[in-house]
Amino acid sequence: MPTSTTSSASEGLLRFTNCLALRPDGSLPSDPTTYSLHVDPAAGKIVDGQSAFFSSSLAFTSTIDLGGDYLVPGFIDVQINGGYGVDFSEYDGDAKTYLDALDLFAQRILETGVTSFVPTIITQNAERYREILPLLAPRSRAGQASSLGWHCEGPFLSPHKKGAHCSSLIRDAPEGVRTLEEVYGAGVDGLDMPNPAVKLLTLAPEVEGILPAIPELVKRGVTVSIGHTASGIDTAQAANQAGARFITHLFNAMGSFNHRDPGVIGLLGDSDLDQPLPVAKSTAPTHTDESRKGRPYYGLIADGFHSHPCSVRMAYSAHPNGCVLVSDAMPWMDPTKPDGVYPWREGQNVTKLGNKVTLEGTDTLAGSVVPISDCVTNLARYASVPLHTAALCASGNAAKMLGLERTKGFLRAGGDADLVVLDRVTGEVKQTWVAGRKVWERK
Amino acid sequence: MPTSTTSSASEGLLRFTNCLALRPDGSLPSDPTTYSLHVDPAAGKIVDGQSAFFSSSLAFTSTIDLGGDYLVPGFIDVQINGGYGVDFSEYDGDAKTYLDALDLFAQRILETGVTSFVPTIITQNAERYREILPLLAPRSRAGQASSLGWHCEGPFLSPHKKGAHCSSLIRDAPEGVRTLEEVYGAGVDGLDMPNPAVKLLTLAPEVEGILPAIPELVKRGVTVSIGHTASGIDTAQAANQAGARFITHLFNAMGSFNHRDPGVIGLLGDSDLDQPLPVAKSTAPTHTDESRKGRPYYGLIADGFHSHPCSVRMAYSAHPNGCVLVSDAMPWMDPTKPDGVYPWREGQNVTKLGNKVTLEGTDTLAGSVVPISDCVTNLARYASVPLHTAALCASGNAAKMLGLERTKGFLRAGGDADLVVLDRVTGEVKQTWVAGRKVWERK
Repeated sequence: MPTSTTSSASEGLLRFTNCLALRPDGSLPSDPTTYSLHVDPAAGKIVDGQSAFFSSSLAFTSTIDLGGDYLVPGFIDVQINGGYGVDFSEYDGDAKTYLDALDLFAQRILETGVTSFVPTIITQNAERYREILPLLAPRSRAGQASSLGWHCEGPFLSPHKKGAHCSSLIRDAPEGVRTLEEVYGAGVDGLDMPNPAVKLLTLAPEVEGILPAIPELVKRGVTVSIGHTASGIDTAQAANQAGARFITHLFNAMGSFNHRDPGVIGLLGDSDLDQPLPVAKSTAPTHTDESRKGRPYYGLIADGFHSHPCSVRMAYSAHPNGCVLVSDAMPWMDPTKPDGVYPWREGQNVTKLGNKVTLEGTDTLAGSVVPISDCVTNLARYASVPLHTAALCASGNAAKMLGLERTKGFLRAGGDADLVVLDRVTGEVKQTWVAGRKVWERK
Repeated sequence: MPTSTTSSASEGLLRFTNCLALRPDGSLPSDPTTYSLHVDPAAGKIVDGQSAFFSSSLAFTSTIDLGGDYLVPGFIDVQINGGYGVDFSEYDGDAKTYLDALDLFAQRILETGVTSFVPTIITQNAERYREILPLLAPRSRAGQASSLGWHCEGPFLSPHKKGAHCSSLIRDAPEGVRTLEEVYGAGVDGLDMPNPAVKLLTLAPEVEGILPAIPELVKRGVTVSIGHTASGIDTAQAANQAGARFITHLFNAMGSFNHRDPGVIGLLGDSDLDQPLPVAKSTAPTHTDESRKGRPYYGLIADGFHSHPCSVRMAYSAHPNGCVLVSDAMPWMDPTKPDGVYPWREGQNVTKLGNKVTLEGTDTLAGSVVPISDCVTNLARYASVPLHTAALCASGNAAKMLGLERTKGFLRAGGDADLVVLDRVTGEVKQTWVAGRKVWERK
């Protein structure tokens, strides 16, 4: 199934054509047959077709006719615990073993259209974070998806919304950022890991010390996500205003939506009520004002289990530009892995049954085994949107949430040439390209 | 505050101009100063400007310059229990007394921009329905809003979601439609009241006999609304598929939204999952496919109490074309009525405090006292949409839900000339017109 890295026939330009390409504004080309996207494989970048034409050093161009299929930006998975037998939260004390596993994962995951990912570490003791995080500096190797940094989901979570996380490790932050430094490490191996490293923290804002720490974290380049929380709408709004720009797996591990206090979920419908009445300014029917700033992005596990399809559509419709599909995939994500009970951690087992993983003997979901490519087709069906619109939620929206939109998530000149070809009828991943190289193709 | 009926200066045409007119497609005129809407006051209809120009019998035209204010279709309130001291559910045995009260209400309500309403009868014993409903045939009198028929909210409700309704009167329908006939009456005075009478029934689909009765009710011209129900999403979908086309005051008196089973609320995110993947067909960014049929309309009380502003925005965004603003107003809706405790029925009292009415000594909301005009400005603010877009939810969407879109709810030739002028900055009602006559004007 996986292939080795394929070099292009020449180091001239590649020209992708005859495809339903997802343009940066979310639209498709008016005439797919004449559309072209130029890629410079030597630089690993998308280049401007006009300038390329006049550049003598990039004269030779090979054309890749995609036969009318979709061409979308490579998928970016910001919440993924592992897969193919690899668990990012496991560490046996040997850095090489850990990185070999990371490389294995980064190569296998290509089949799902993922070209970048943020390894997600579930609640651990402080020692473990300080061993693992330094290993998770951004990593891009030939023939692999890029590892962008780290996502720590815990330990500053609500004990009432712990989900599958280990109770005894959940804690508060009496010293604010200083407590966080003790846990995740300070300096370039921890909270101050330099750009472009993704440093994503899922935090419950009601936990002691967390809400006041958010502005300082943001200043240090940390992306703060609200999650595993029992917060009501007021605390959620305060966290958002303090700088939190993401919601971790919306609906799951948070207080229920209640119409009088919609909780964190209500942020999808937030607006600035101190403004005067919206003024008529357009002759077109206006149903949502997407120009408003302020509402956070939100992760959505559209695996068919974590949320009902109607809930997925409601969330998406409420705030389409904020939707970031995540797999929340577990080490058991692997199409070749049979159903069964598997040991996890702290003596717990999980039951894998088809595409569903639960803590053994319970109905508590323990992450997912559904790849993000399937979440894209699910979202298209659930929300009745075209496939390319759903694909934007696994690419451009994720890039914007992480502040990486200049290099990732969009098919535009200057960006990394991370691409996925999707079957125009089924949405199935047919090819994956990273940095201008074809790194996987369906046989 | 109310004014007497004003005749136009001549029985020629009226030409409204210089206004932000809500066009049938939801847009505004590109140049409001040159826009004109022609009204024939003798016929009470909006007429086509072109044909009017060539018709000798309608030669004289007076121009009404609205100075740049909004001109929107008259508001249609499909859930309103009374107001100005009138309670549509009260009947002392004298038809004249009842109809006099209805007339008083229909005249006073004009100040809120309402030009049509559906009197709503809360849970009663069968005898009372059979006395009241025959009096609620459509009624249009000079200088009044039109009464369109009736909305019976009960008695076929879930005892678990009764809200302020009287427990002892709530019942099931073991004989299906026959039981409903016993309660509401059969024939032209009851369930078979002829068109264009609005016959709106709020029913809980899980109540014995209700779900199977829906297709027959629809066949007889009844508009079925799902409400006061503990149904999960499966039963809600079944009711929708059986023909229910409305949800009574969304969020209130129904099961909570849970992401695994979003209940009736989930219908706002419903889609047909048996369809193939949505196919790319447009070059424009597509975020919601509003061409899909099937999702019901839903009533929303945007009074600031019944639902949090974030919840209102989420609902609106999930299904903007389905949103129907309702006041759910109580007899105590009257700006001149002081705060206090007022007797209601069955020995219960209600507490009016500002714009909030609760059962005395509880937090249970007992309807609202916020007029629909305020709900329109609230929706604009909560959902960050222009005022005319919010106004569509109190006019066109209501008309479509009731199947009256050819005569009501839109500013188009052939329709009833029911109009409201709203201040372009504050949204305040400045004038109300019914059937081409100015029937109220702010002093």
